[in-house]
Amino acid sequence: MEYQPGPGRNNLFVPGPVNVPEQVLRAMNRNNEDYRSPAMPILAKSVLEDVKRIFKTTSATSFIIPTTGTGAWESALTNTLSPRDKILTFRLGQFSLLWIDQMQRLNFDVDVVDVDWGAGVDLSVLREKLLADPYHQIKAVCVVHNETATGVTNDLSGIRNVLDRCRHPALFLVDGVSSIGALDFRMDEWGVDVALTGSQKALSLPTGLGIICAGPKALEASKTAKSLRVFFDWNDYLKFYKMGTYWPYTPSSQLLYGLRASMDMIFEEGLDNVIARHQRCGHATRLAVEAWGLKNCTQKPEWFSDTVTAVLVPSHMDSSQVVKHAWKKYNLSLGLGLNKVAGKVFRIGHLGHLNELQLLGALAGVEMVLKDLGYPIQLGSGVGAASAYLMQSTPLIKSRL
Amino acid sequence: MEYQPGPGRNNLFVPGPVNVPEQVLRAMNRNNEDYRSPAMPILAKSVLEDVKRIFKTTSATSFIIPTTGTGAWESALTNTLSPRDKILTFRLGQFSLLWIDQMQRLNFDVDVVDVDWGAGVDLSVLREKLLADPYHQIKAVCVVHNETATGVTNDLSGIRNVLDRCRHPALFLVDGVSSIGALDFRMDEWGVDVALTGSQKALSLPTGLGIICAGPKALEASKTAKSLRVFFDWNDYLKFYKMGTYWPYTPSSQLLYGLRASMDMIFEEGLDNVIARHQRCGHATRLAVEAWGLKNCTQKPEWFSDTVTAVLVPSHMDSSQVVKHAWKKYNLSLGLGLNKVAGKVFRIGHLGHLNELQLLGALAGVEMVLKDLGYPIQLGSGVGAASAYLMQSTPLIKSRL
Amino acid sequence: MEYQPGPGRNNLFVPGPVNVPEQVLRAMNRNNEDYRSPAMPILAKSVLEDVKRIFKTTSATSFIIPTTGTGAWESALTNTLSPRDKILTFRLGQFSLLWIDQMQRLNFDVDVVDVDWGAGVDLSVLREKLLADPYHQIKAVCVVHNETATGVTNDLSGIRNVLDRCRHPALFLVDGVSSIGALDFRMDEWGVDVALTGSQKALSLPTGLGIICAGPKALEASKTAKSLRVFFDWNDYLKFYKMGTYWPYTPSSQLLYGLRASMDMIFEEGLDNVIARHQRCGHATRLAVEAWGLKNCTQKPEWFSDTVTAVLVPSHMDSSQVVKHAWKKYNLSLGLGLNKVAGKVFRIGHLGHLNELQLLGALAGVEMVLKDLGYPIQLGSGVGAASAYLMQSTPLIKSRL
Amino acid sequence: MEYQPGPGRNNLFVPGPVNVPEQVLRAMNRNNEDYRSPAMPILAKSVLEDVKRIFKTTSATSFIIPTTGTGAWESALTNTLSPRDKILTFRLGQFSLLWIDQMQRLNFDVDVVDVDWGAGVDLSVLREKLLADPYHQIKAVCVVHNETATGVTNDLSGIRNVLDRCRHPALFLVDGVSSIGALDFRMDEWGVDVALTGSQKALSLPTGLGIICAGPKALEASKTAKSLRVFFDWNDYLKFYKMGTYWPYTPSSQLLYGLRASMDMIFEEGLDNVIARHQRCGHATRLAVEAWGLKNCTQKPEWFSDTVTAVLVPSHMDSSQVVKHAWKKYNLSLGLGLNKVAGKVFRIGHLGHLNELQLLGALAGVEMVLKDLGYPIQLGSGVGAASAYLMQSTPLIKSRL
Repeated sequence: MEYQPGPGRNNLFVPGPVNVPEQVLRAMNRNNEDYRSPAMPILAKSVLEDVKRIFKTTSATSFIIPTTGTGAWESALTNTLSPRDKILTFRLGQFSLLWIDQMQRLNFDVDVVDVDWGAGVDLSVLREKLLADPYHQIKAVCVVHNETATGVTNDLSGIRNVLDRCRHPALFLVDGVSSIGALDFRMDEWGVDVALTGSQKALSLPTGLGIICAGPKALEASKTAKSLRVFFDWNDYLKFYKMGTYWPYTPSSQLLYGLRASMDMIFEEGLDNVIARHQRCGHATRLAVEAWGLKNCTQKPEWFSDTVTAVLVPSHMDSSQVVKHAWKKYNLSLGLGLNKVAGKVFRIGHLGHLNELQLLGALAGVEMVLKDLGYPIQLGSGVGAASAYLMQSTPLIKSRL
Repeated sequence: MEYQPGPGRNNLFVPGPVNVPEQVLRAMNRNNEDYRSPAMPILAKSVLEDVKRIFKTTSATSFIIPTTGTGAWESALTNTLSPRDKILTFRLGQFSLLWIDQMQRLNFDVDVVDVDWGAGVDLSVLREKLLADPYHQIKAVCVVHNETATGVTNDLSGIRNVLDRCRHPALFLVDGVSSIGALDFRMDEWGVDVALTGSQKALSLPTGLGIICAGPKALEASKTAKSLRVFFDWNDYLKFYKMGTYWPYTPSSQLLYGLRASMDMIFEEGLDNVIARHQRCGHATRLAVEAWGLKNCTQKPEWFSDTVTAVLVPSHMDSSQVVKHAWKKYNLSLGLGLNKVAGKVFRIGHLGHLNELQLLGALAGVEMVLKDLGYPIQLGSGVGAASAYLMQSTPLIKSRL
Repeated sequence: MEYQPGPGRNNLFVPGPVNVPEQVLRAMNRNNEDYRSPAMPILAKSVLEDVKRIFKTTSATSFIIPTTGTGAWESALTNTLSPRDKILTFRLGQFSLLWIDQMQRLNFDVDVVDVDWGAGVDLSVLREKLLADPYHQIKAVCVVHNETATGVTNDLSGIRNVLDRCRHPALFLVDGVSSIGALDFRMDEWGVDVALTGSQKALSLPTGLGIICAGPKALEASKTAKSLRVFFDWNDYLKFYKMGTYWPYTPSSQLLYGLRASMDMIFEEGLDNVIARHQRCGHATRLAVEAWGLKNCTQKPEWFSDTVTAVLVPSHMDSSQVVKHAWKKYNLSLGLGLNKVAGKVFRIGHLGHLNELQLLGALAGVEMVLKDLGYPIQLGSGVGAASAYLMQSTPLIKSRL
Repeated sequence: MEYQPGPGRNNLFVPGPVNVPEQVLRAMNRNNEDYRSPAMPILAKSVLEDVKRIFKTTSATSFIIPTTGTGAWESALTNTLSPRDKILTFRLGQFSLLWIDQMQRLNFDVDVVDVDWGAGVDLSVLREKLLADPYHQIKAVCVVHNETATGVTNDLSGIRNVLDRCRHPALFLVDGVSSIGALDFRMDEWGVDVALTGSQKALSLPTGLGIICAGPKALEASKTAKSLRVFFDWNDYLKFYKMGTYWPYTPSSQLLYGLRASMDMIFEEGLDNVIARHQRCGHATRLAVEAWGLKNCTQKPEWFSDTVTAVLVPSHMDSSQVVKHAWKKYNLSLGLGLNKVAGKVFRIGHLGHLNELQLLGALAGVEMVLKDLGYPIQLGSGVGAASAYLMQSTPLIKSRL
């Protein structure tokens, strides 16, 4: 049962869902289990503890909710805020746009700072906004760490500094969907109050888990937040944590075993080594784009994303043709340009379970696609540029020393 | 990686999550896919259409949401009702209780009819309530088709008749979590406006899909319902249905392939044959309980459930010991008594991917457990009674004629 | 893709291939690997060492050959004997018959002692034969430990005693296909020179591995044995053992990982506990047969097999109808009567990955089958008799204490 | 459970075992089955018939033996020849060498023509040999179609022509292990009497099946061939074919389902399209090698193999370092140089389940490895050369038109 199969393996380079390692597929290849058996809490406890290591937090409480990133967003907002609470946030791509849409429909008072698609959060604007709020009407500052649509990584540490310097008590809520587990992310050090991700990104699992860490201030806020919520209510989870049975409703034991396997792999490689691998792949991809004579949608190096690269095509080209042709001829899955950048960018995802050679194969594919579509490219140029960097930066594999 | 493994296969007889067929495990054993590729809509369309056959509806619109039954409940309520809308419903076990808790926390005005745990919906009470509502303040009647905690199946056709005779326009919302796909359920014929189930029950999948069918009246109601919702909002789905891309956020392609496989198996066996198999297993289980000299928690035969049997233990026994001992000695997973019936009942699930011999093995296990715990049982008595019935009622396997 | 599918899980009770645990399926669910990579020898070494623990030998050398039991037989014979060498052996069922056929076709001089099908090796006959061979023409005594066709387990310890008392130097070659890993088997203690099994029996793997342990005397014999052989030649293996790469031709890495997982499970449960579980299931099955008023094909209790029970049907019945009907109606797979006992016996396999409740389900199935076919049986009688024994003999599960 | 794991997916480019498609892994992810059930012959028949399409024969009889290529060799020889029968054959690499070793140890009278490693069969030598044999002492001509050690593909059609022109009745036995299903192979048209392959090569399965097709003349020869054989004896199979149960001993049902899935994929793509894809990948690889300034071990273009390329390293380099470094740094598995060419060549396998981008990733890896080891290479040069060819020769994917 396969729809539109192609020869060989699908070269999956969308910025999520990403390639699932065989180890994870194996771990999930199992019958259902009674989630009220004494065996389940052992697993539950182990993954709830260890996701905090991925978020680099010891102070937060973790929640693993059977939902997607969109649900995790909703969980973060409704557990910490009350209707009409003021949120300050930034619209810099399709995913921040969608989160803002959610905020508005959930009846929050959203102060949206619009930013060029391709730029990141301007700290000086943030500072201004906070200083203009002496009575602390702003209850939360919501930031997408890595805007997957434009390949922009925001400076969370800088945002925390601004918040601190302005002595502003707003909660700091972070969408880490395409960052946590792949990019440098430090929940405690950066004073993030709620951070969240989805299983199908850096954790290289199927979709289905919204993973949320809530710091002490957020947890405190959840006690008085008046947003209506049941499915996403942290309090139901906390009640079951106390009882030691962990889930207020049926979890997917398969995904929990998968998460266990995925984190085992990350810890075995070393979380910081995983992050370094993503930096390597991100940089290599950007070198290839440069060699092709194309522009990165991300406007400044400080915002370059190491999990996804949004490539601008020349104005006479349609980037959706790039994606379509890659799929039709080379079994290569690239990301479309979304919304404002539809037709203008295509995206190369380079996150999760991936190594240098897989990436180089995809870059070679992009070269052929571009040339097929009439863009004058020297075949091998991008791969060569990327290789030159990867060759010198890739370490020997730990387990094979 | 196994927590508390036992010899042989776990004998999983909780009323969900149920045994996943190998065919379904196989279908799900796959890498992630780009959910925006042209291949996905083909799969999406096929499962969205076919779940309607499981619900026996042609007029409804189906939604497959990455959530659990609890989320599906929330989806049914928030899409059709506005805060403070009046709901009439019945509390007859832990799952109706939890749904009611959700209704109340979502700020609906809930008129709860409390029913003995072990009894079903009293149609005359329903009739009274509806007749006492000439101005149609009641916007929805919410019923759990099969109360999993007590093994009570309600008479949905009867409820529809009462609604019709009272000419009451309230929406008829049905939790079919432990019924649809296993018990006789006819959405269109019975005039159900919203029906829902979860993937881990009769469909024999892992947890992770909330499956909802909304009839035309419910869909109409969703246009004006003022409950805040984003993740669970049907309108987002409808928007993507129109575009032909089907999902407003990332679905689990693995579960969709699994659902495809699960429904293929159901259609191959024949949905009505599947239902008949559940009737057979339900009846056989009740015969065993009777042979053991034990009482069914379900108070009248008209409410007997064919997917779960809640067995009352003698007053000097603690039913949770039954469950614990079954797990510790025989690798048998039974359902606990919940809330009001905690300690009083244990539950034998008999739904989903299951055949007669698997059931008889579990019944033999229950016999040994009961005897181990001092209950005077004649070993083989329940199995013999069940076998006598199964022998005469089990048909030859279609594919092997 | 399923041929003749039935509802629920196939109840697989043939005496091999047996049920594969999910843990093993998971371990095997993987891509191919370069078998010349540095990772493979680590796995190879670990399984080659550990199979010896299953055989209870420290002095033997193990070989894991990509073949079946039939190939393992051929390997045992051709590596230790030369054409026209004299073999003393016993024909007591279909599998000893087939091995003898192989011996004859490989041009050995086979002295066959025919035994009633249902009886085991008569030690006094063995003694006679050995005493009648003062010049040690008999180079090997070949015995099937557990004759799968008739459910007869031979007394290997007794055979060794006779060999010793007669001071006969013949090699002692043992087919342990349906015994090793399930029945009490002690290679070193019993002075077995070559023992062999197949992966699809007690090890609960798919077919594909012939596992052979050769003691020092056998290994010495292999240096001069003149039987032509290449694929099955131990010397090729020994050469690669020395080089540390272990395989003279491509092994199945999947099966090796599966073997690793299977042995891990056996060691976790404890090999002697696994053997005790088989004794329990064997005894319980025999009690059921007795309760049904049927006869065991095995003629004396001393030969009762704990991995398979061959049940004699009354003379007016055709046992192949039992097997056929079990398959067609109850999704139950039983073993046919073979050759001399075709039509007369059906076989219940109870080996490998199995627990008490699975067995009781199968016994309940056999009861219904027999009654369906007109045999006057009291339903529940066999299950009750088996349960009474299992209840008192089954220990709590170690990991759940 | 993973030995020496690396980040991302292992880039498996040895010339077998090759990458197993997920479709095949899925098909094999299943419990054992009773191989004597009525379901098995349906599967058996379907695969036995369809492998003949892969061999392009309608006249031959197929055998699927639970063994490896080495066992398939033994089967081909022992079923058609008697000890001391004369065989004419060619030693042109490690695999022909090993087959010859087998022939000699099986006591045939082998006339070995030694050929430079890197060259193919010289038809004029063959002609001479045949003409020098007027009394037809030569009973078989044995040829390895594709010598995996040196990347040499022999001209089978030419060999048949020589045999025909010399009117020599010798059997024509062909090792198609690394060719059949990937290279142009026409059993009937080329008058091949026995052809064989292994499951882990072009069929992209795990190791474990030796697949043999025997034409009418070979089958006739098997009736009188005096080589001792049991496990490999075709006659046992033929006996079971007649009975309709197909296997004389237990097959691996998992591998048979896998073979079904594998062939379904090949037929879906189209066998000739599969062959064209291999030609494309072979040619692209050779262009890369040329661009790197390296020599192909294969001495003439007429012998170039499209399933494996053996690359000669400069004399000051050690090719085993290339293989080792690729494994240690890039998670890339390449083939070692074997025997005479050890240290001199490394091999890139490009067969089975593979597409252009996967290959280009591997070529990019080889470039970095070579440069890491001091070989002066322009990174991207080989990939560029290969891409230029692939871009123009790769068709759109059939299912995505």
